[in-house]
Parts: sequence; C-alpha cells; structure tokens
Amino acid sequence: MADDLYFSLHDFQLECGVALPELRIAYRAEGNLSPARDNVIVTGTSFGATPDDLNFLIGPGKAIDTDRYFVVRTHMIGNGYSSSPSNMSAPLDGPRFPAISIRDNVQAQYRLLTEGLGIGHIRAYAGASMGAQQAYQWAVSYPDLMDWIVPIVGGAHTTPHGQAFLRAMRQPILDDPDFAGGDYTRPPARGLRTAGMIWLPWGYGQEFYAHEKYREHLGVRHESLEAFVAAVSEGYTARDANNYLCHNSVWMRHNVGDTPGFGGDLGRALASIRARALVIPSRTDTYFYLPDLVAEAEQVPYHRLRILDTVYGHTGGFGGTPADAAFINAEVADALAEG
Amino acid sequence: MADDLYFSLHDFQLECGVALPELRIAYRAEGNLSPARDNVIVTGTSFGATPDDLNFLIGPGKAIDTDRYFVVRTHMIGNGYSSSPSNMSAPLDGPRFPAISIRDNVQAQYRLLTEGLGIGHIRAYAGASMGAQQAYQWAVSYPDLMDWIVPIVGGAHTTPHGQAFLRAMRQPILDDPDFAGGDYTRPPARGLRTAGMIWLPWGYGQEFYAHEKYREHLGVRHESLEAFVAAVSEGYTARDANNYLCHNSVWMRHNVGDTPGFGGDLGRALASIRARALVIPSRTDTYFYLPDLVAEAEQVPYHRLRILDTVYGHTGGFGGTPADAAFINAEVADALAEG
Repeated sequence: MADDLYFSLHDFQLECGVALPELRIAYRAEGNLSPARDNVIVTGTSFGATPDDLNFLIGPGKAIDTDRYFVVRTHMIGNGYSSSPSNMSAPLDGPRFPAISIRDNVQAQYRLLTEGLGIGHIRAYAGASMGAQQAYQWAVSYPDLMDWIVPIVGGAHTTPHGQAFLRAMRQPILDDPDFAGGDYTRPPARGLRTAGMIWLPWGYGQEFYAHEKYREHLGVRHESLEAFVAAVSEGYTARDANNYLCHNSVWMRHNVGDTPGFGGDLGRALASIRARALVIPSRTDTYFYLPDLVAEAEQVPYHRLRILDTVYGHTGGFGGTPADAAFINAEVADALAEG
Repeated sequence: MADDLYFSLHDFQLECGVALPELRIAYRAEGNLSPARDNVIVTGTSFGATPDDLNFLIGPGKAIDTDRYFVVRTHMIGNGYSSSPSNMSAPLDGPRFPAISIRDNVQAQYRLLTEGLGIGHIRAYAGASMGAQQAYQWAVSYPDLMDWIVPIVGGAHTTPHGQAFLRAMRQPILDDPDFAGGDYTRPPARGLRTAGMIWLPWGYGQEFYAHEKYREHLGVRHESLEAFVAAVSEGYTARDANNYLCHNSVWMRHNVGDTPGFGGDLGRALASIRARALVIPSRTDTYFYLPDLVAEAEQVPYHRLRILDTVYGHTGGFGGTPADAAFINAEVADALAEG
C-alpha cells in the first residue's frame, strides 16, 4: 500500500467564508507518471473512508491499473487524514472546524494536481458515494480537465430524501450527553452506535436482508440478524464524532447547481459537463436512489449509464461481491480503453 | 365518532407465558347488526394508532359503509386504550408490561366477537400496516370465520430488513437518559423525537421527497424540509415511550408461520388461508416492501393483489391523498360486493 503524502495550502478560502490558515490534503500516488503526463487518474473518498474504499478497482491488473496509470488517490477533508476536526489545531479544532463543501474539496484537489504535481489534464476522476459527488463537481468546476468522470453509487446533488436520512443519522450523536457539544472527553459511543444502527437497513437495502446476506458478510459469519446489527454498529464507535458530523454536513448540502455561475440550477450545471460520464448506480440503492441518479445522468450530454444489478444496495458500489467488483471493473476498463 | 367501549378478559394467557389477570380490549361499534348477524366487518389498528387510522375507509357512503355494515373497530393491545404499559396496574405496568404478540391481539379480538358480541362469522377483517398483520393472522388462526381479509400496506411476517429498521427506531429511546429503563418521571422526549426523525425518510419514501410533497402535507404547510422534519418528529414526543416499545416489539416478532401447527413455516401458514384476500401494498413502501408483500400474497390460495400506485410510500395505505383513499375504497367496495 502506498504511503499517505500531504499537500498543504495556505490561507485557503472556504466556500462558507472562513479562511483556513493551513489546509492539508492527504493523498497517495501509485504507478508512474508518463513522460507526456497523460496517464493520470484521480480518485476521491467516500463518507468517513480512506482511499482503501476503492481497492477493488485500483491496482495491478484492475481497471485502474497502477502498472499503466499514475493514480492519485485523494482523502476528503474531514476524514481524519486530510485536515479534519480531529486533527486541526485550535482555534479551529473539533466542533469549531468550519463547514466544508464538496467544492472546497475539489478546489483543493485541483490545486494539488496542478500546483503540487504539475498535471494539467487527467484521464478520469472516479469515486463512489461522496466520491461520486466529487466526480460530478470536478466535471462542473473544471470542464476541460478530464476525459472521463466515473460517479459510482452517488450523484450530483443531495435530494430532500437524502437530507432527511442524513438528519436522522446525525441526531443520536447530537443527543448523546457524552457528545458535549463536540468537546467530548470520551467518545459519544452510544450515539455513534445508534447512528450505525440507523444506517444499516439503508446501507444494504431490502433485498440484501431478504436473501439473508448478513449471515456471512465480508468474510465474517453472523449467527443472526441481531449479531450482524450489533457487530456493524459497534464498529461505528471507533469513528470520531466531529469528523462524522463534518462529512454528514458536506453531503447534506451538496448540489453542483450551486457552483458559481449556475444560480442553483442543477440541470444547467449538469448540461455544462464536457467530460464523458460513466455513471454506475446500484439497482437496490436506497439513498443514492436509482431513479434520482438516472435522472441526473440523463442531463449530462455524454453519459454512459450502467446499472449495477446487485442485492447489496449502496454497498454494491464498493465491490460488495466479487460479481459487483467484476462488473464495475469491466465497465471502467471499457471506458478507459476508448480513445 | 363512536365511543370507545371495553371488553375484559380474565386470566388471559399470553403467548409469552405470562397470564394477565385482566386484559381489556377497547373497541368501537358502528352501524346496526342485521337480524341474520351477517353484516359484520372488523378492523385492527396500526402502530401507536387509534381506530381513526381507517377513517378514510369507514363511514356512511365509504367502502366500509356504516349504513350497511356493523363495524367493530378494535384497538391493539399497547395503544394506550386497550391494556397497555401506560394504563396497566402494578406489577405489570410500564416496562414490566409483558411481551405481546399479534396472535394475542387476534385471540382477544376473536373472544370479543364470539363471547362478547355473539358473532360467529364476519364479512371481512381489514387493517393497514400492523392492522394488516392482524388481518393475515385472523385468516390463519380462524380460517372459516371470515369471507375476506383486507391487508393494506402490511404483511404476514416481519422481514429481517423490517427487524433492522425496527431496531434502529427503538434505540434512541433506550439511549435517552430520561427513559430510565422505562420508569421515567418525565418523557424521554429527545429519544422519541429522534425515533420520529428516523421514521420520516422510511415512512414517506424517496418519491414523496423527490416531488416535495412535504411542502404541504395533511393540510399543513412547511416552508422547508427542515421544518417538516421538525414538526413531524416533535409530534412523536406526545407518545408514551413504553407503549411505543411495546408495539415495536409486537411488530418485530410477527410471523404467521409461528402459529401453532405450522412449525415456523410461513408458506404453509399462508397456503392454509381459506378466506379470500384483497392484498393492497403500496408501490413506494420502503419497509412493508412491495416485492415482499407480493411474494406473500401469491402464497394465499385466493388472493386479489391490487398495488396502490402512490408517491406517498407506506402512508399511502392510510389514504395519503384523495386518490389513494379513492383507490382503496373502490377496491374494498368491489370485493365486498361479491357474493
């Protein structure tokens, strides 16, 4: 696994109005940059994740082949590696960390690419879930910078349903007395655990449970639904609550229509995209809901819509099964093979 | 509106093993019993509801026409009117109220009908959501008692997905320090409010939000999604937490396959139904999920499946819009008009 590298930007002006004295973007670089600097692929991370979230898609022999491409995997602001509530110095630490947007991430990543690495064009930007939000934003903000975007199980704006879902997921953390307004001395474990329980029926969706896929998941056997719920939600207690809330807020407010120049018009922003878009929603996704993602994709002039037929819901987009991983790899490889 | 009447059963043996010294079933009686006693329709309530939940379907000129039928609307155990954690005397009050099953409700309602009202046959049993669970159970427990069952937006067993959803909805109440193990001196308002927030994206479903139906709902205008979420979840604070948890548990454990004689076999229990079943799922229901309800209905020998095409999700089954109410009324009237 490649080491995490860091790129620092100074006096970075956030969309919310705050200027960060220093914004640090963590990233990984794999493969070799060609002399013509024309073999670059960039990726973005999903909610609370490291770039390992795309391991199923990146590596020697995979669609994003590190024997062939120079791959820059970025970490999202707030994930605990890039600047985050958990690693920021006072006075912007913890609950005082400012509101971040997807566009702030994309702008910082753009400067990493152009100023930090001297790269002026990329073959593709790929990401799943909030990584897909970043992919769409890249294409709207920097329309001539890439040949392809690959938004997987994620979209160009957060729907009102998604907002209602995100409000529910953050509330138990805010309710936990241990949260203490974000200045916790011990983690708000109950709130985090309950946030995990709320996510569970959404994250996998109805068919995953109907097929009892929880009985063996990611190589772990669970003797019952109850054991599965307990194990997955317990995992949430390892998350930093302020980082969790940061990403919840970034996601909730996202809309490429709010990019300067589009006046809140989602359709006009999507119509402005000049990159080719390989859009991969999951048939069974409950929150990046198939009809919503299809409606967005159809507004992109050049879109190639490939629906992942999986019972793993949203998680199918992270290669939930070998078949899911194979489908996404094949589609991405096909797209990248085009001239 | 008819008054609530009460029927008491003594030394009522619950399925969980506890005997209740007194079990009180609240009900309403409307219309006139015909001399031949052949015009009876019975209904059951949904989660935390009174029999007003079927007002859209019951009354003069509606499908369940009180000018024509003698209508007995039962209250579910645990709803605050029938015996409930909130109204039971010590030592079975509050969190000491025993676990209740759908079958306990159905058995008590059967005795109200037969012993209390002297009725040996009914035209139909109708209910929505948990009322539908009761309808299916009536048909399995008393197969020759009715001509029709009408399960609306509810099914014959709770799926693992439904169980995961129900676990999420109860957890914030259990987490609330004010809950105090069920012996609260002030309501666990934060937990109840958060339970309401968790329910909201499920209860209405993705399309309701996509069409921004929350902007005007049940005659109330909400200026934003945030205002809608705040208003509906605030309404949850009026619920009694122990009653809420009672119904959560009844729902979570339901499966007609567990009826004595079927050995846990859902399919065999459904195949044993001799009543005609008018099954009305909602196309956009996220938790009494359409494919699950269709699969159950298809195992009933005589089933008439009528899918409610609504963007109101689960709530469409309660006559969410005038069109939803009209559709359900027409289907129920058609069925009851048969010989």
